[in-house]
Amino acid sequence: MEIAPSVSHILETSLYVSDLSRSRIFYQRLFGFEALLEDHRMCALRVPSSGVLLLFKHDGSLAPSHVPGGVIPPHGGSGALHLCFAVPLASLDAWTAHLERQNVALESRVRQRFGGISLYFRDPDGHSVEVATPGLWTNY
Amino acid sequence: MEIAPSVSHILETSLYVSDLSRSRIFYQRLFGFEALLEDHRMCALRVPSSGVLLLFKHDGSLAPSHVPGGVIPPHGGSGALHLCFAVPLASLDAWTAHLERQNVALESRVRQRFGGISLYFRDPDGHSVEVATPGLWTNY
Repeated sequence: MEIAPSVSHILETSLYVSDLSRSRIFYQRLFGFEALLEDHRMCALRVPSSGVLLLFKHDGSLAPSHVPGGVIPPHGGSGALHLCFAVPLASLDAWTAHLERQNVALESRVRQRFGGISLYFRDPDGHSVEVATPGLWTNY
Repeated sequence: MEIAPSVSHILETSLYVSDLSRSRIFYQRLFGFEALLEDHRMCALRVPSSGVLLLFKHDGSLAPSHVPGGVIPPHGGSGALHLCFAVPLASLDAWTAHLERQNVALESRVRQRFGGISLYFRDPDGHSVEVATPGLWTNY
């Protein structure tokens, strides 16, 4: 029986957007994420703890990217993607108020099966963004 | 100056796949991820530490999902998406050997700017999967 080498955590999750600056501003204003890198085709935002949200301009990642250390393979998606950020239970009311103050419409609020509460809203490209308190899954 | 409520970490990242069972088997064999939930339209796989990889069958998430606690909004993507899992530096050789034993072609190996090493390969739908040792970004 072969044992898989271990994984530490999800490091990067990616979204594909039509206006890089608009999306960066949205995620930075709403979440306070620090920009780690930004160029004409992508923006990398630091997500607690030890994660990175990658925003790629549509068609900006469809060619291989030659960097000094090798070749980053191409990729590129479309449609309304989904991602979720874990937030502390204590922050739920603050999140609700924060979305309202930022004029981000709350699309849905769901009590999940293990008691966690999810708030769903859309980013400027219509991606489905969720913030969820502990109790969404058995491992968080 | 308004302070954003805090984020704990990336909880969920999503892929859209054509054959749910094939994708589940791929990620479980390669990464050893435990299935948290599986039905006809999606599969949730537990990712260390406190993360979840969601696999959605194409078109399986395009309608709102009515659950006892509320309504989960629709979403759905296409194309070759990108995600990255952090792996320990000590596991790099084991990962290289593991991919070879699993007949997963290594598409690229890149030394990143801060010294981390990335291995890139494709999942059954052509999504660009990366495993990266520490030193890819300044925060990991």
